[in-house]
Amino acid sequence: MELLEALRTRRSVRQWTPEPISDQQLERLVQAAASAPSAGNRQPWAFVVVREPGRIRRLRAAIPGMSGAPAAIVSICLDRRRADREPGTTEYDMALLTLGGAMQSLLLAAHTEQLGACALGSYHIPSIRSILALPEHLDPKLLIALGHSVEQPDGPTMRPLSEICFFEEVVAK
Amino acid sequence: MELLEALRTRRSVRQWTPEPISDQQLERLVQAAASAPSAGNRQPWAFVVVREPGRIRRLRAAIPGMSGAPAAIVSICLDRRRADREPGTTEYDMALLTLGGAMQSLLLAAHTEQLGACALGSYHIPSIRSILALPEHLDPKLLIALGHSVEQPDGPTMRPLSEICFFEEVVAK
Repeated sequence: MELLEALRTRRSVRQWTPEPISDQQLERLVQAAASAPSAGNRQPWAFVVVREPGRIRRLRAAIPGMSGAPAAIVSICLDRRRADREPGTTEYDMALLTLGGAMQSLLLAAHTEQLGACALGSYHIPSIRSILALPEHLDPKLLIALGHSVEQPDGPTMRPLSEICFFEEVVAK
Repeated sequence: MELLEALRTRRSVRQWTPEPISDQQLERLVQAAASAPSAGNRQPWAFVVVREPGRIRRLRAAIPGMSGAPAAIVSICLDRRRADREPGTTEYDMALLTLGGAMQSLLLAAHTEQLGACALGSYHIPSIRSILALPEHLDPKLLIALGHSVEQPDGPTMRPLSEICFFEEVVAK
């Protein structure tokens, strides 16, 4: 799929069929994620891919906003050994921007592989840490739920370009 | 260009020809950026696009790490009216992850349009605020420098998948 088409047609999908996703496909998605740029090429990330039904069930119980049952969940973690800064610093912000680039790469790659995915930011962190056996240095910053879509949701309402795009300098609107 | 090819061949480009970029092309890039997903569809962003040579020169003076002269610089700003949380909160992290998705979408779109781009996170923030006339609620979280490439840099060394990708849970390595 063409990049611009992928950008235009990708949706956040939250309902899936029970069909599994192959490990090869999941690895391709992680490789897509890890091809995002990172400041100083530090690649401050780790990806934990869950596809065992029992563990998915336990994760779902720690994610209040999730109604559907995905075939896989990928946790995108910040590796603090590679971005060991406090919130509020430019370095910390850059590490999160970097993870955001990995997130979008994974979401787009999933879409081109005919999978539906959504990013989840709200969950019970201690439960996630425990279920994924995360060591101290890995912070689960985002979960991506994935599966074969049973829906193609409408696109969200977008803010008009005139409201978000300025040339040369910002003029109050 | 296919998404997977774009992911695989995109590079951070830091040297450019003097050829300008059209406003139409710049608007397409901003639209690509703004097609990234955002938590609760809040779209907590603004994009300030600079292409006047005088203003580019002033911006360059505020970015110590930049040697080349780009045809355009896009500032990706966090709109704190739409993500009004403090650093260290999950909401703030999600807003930065969202901007990171916009960043990667813009970088990939630039690449498919045969432009070279790089993201810059280190600069003198008060100067940037002043040059772009940013109002209080817009924080310049990232700059993207763009132009027609005079180089196709080698790809960076990537961490092996075995080091960054785990199935089911993290096993110490």
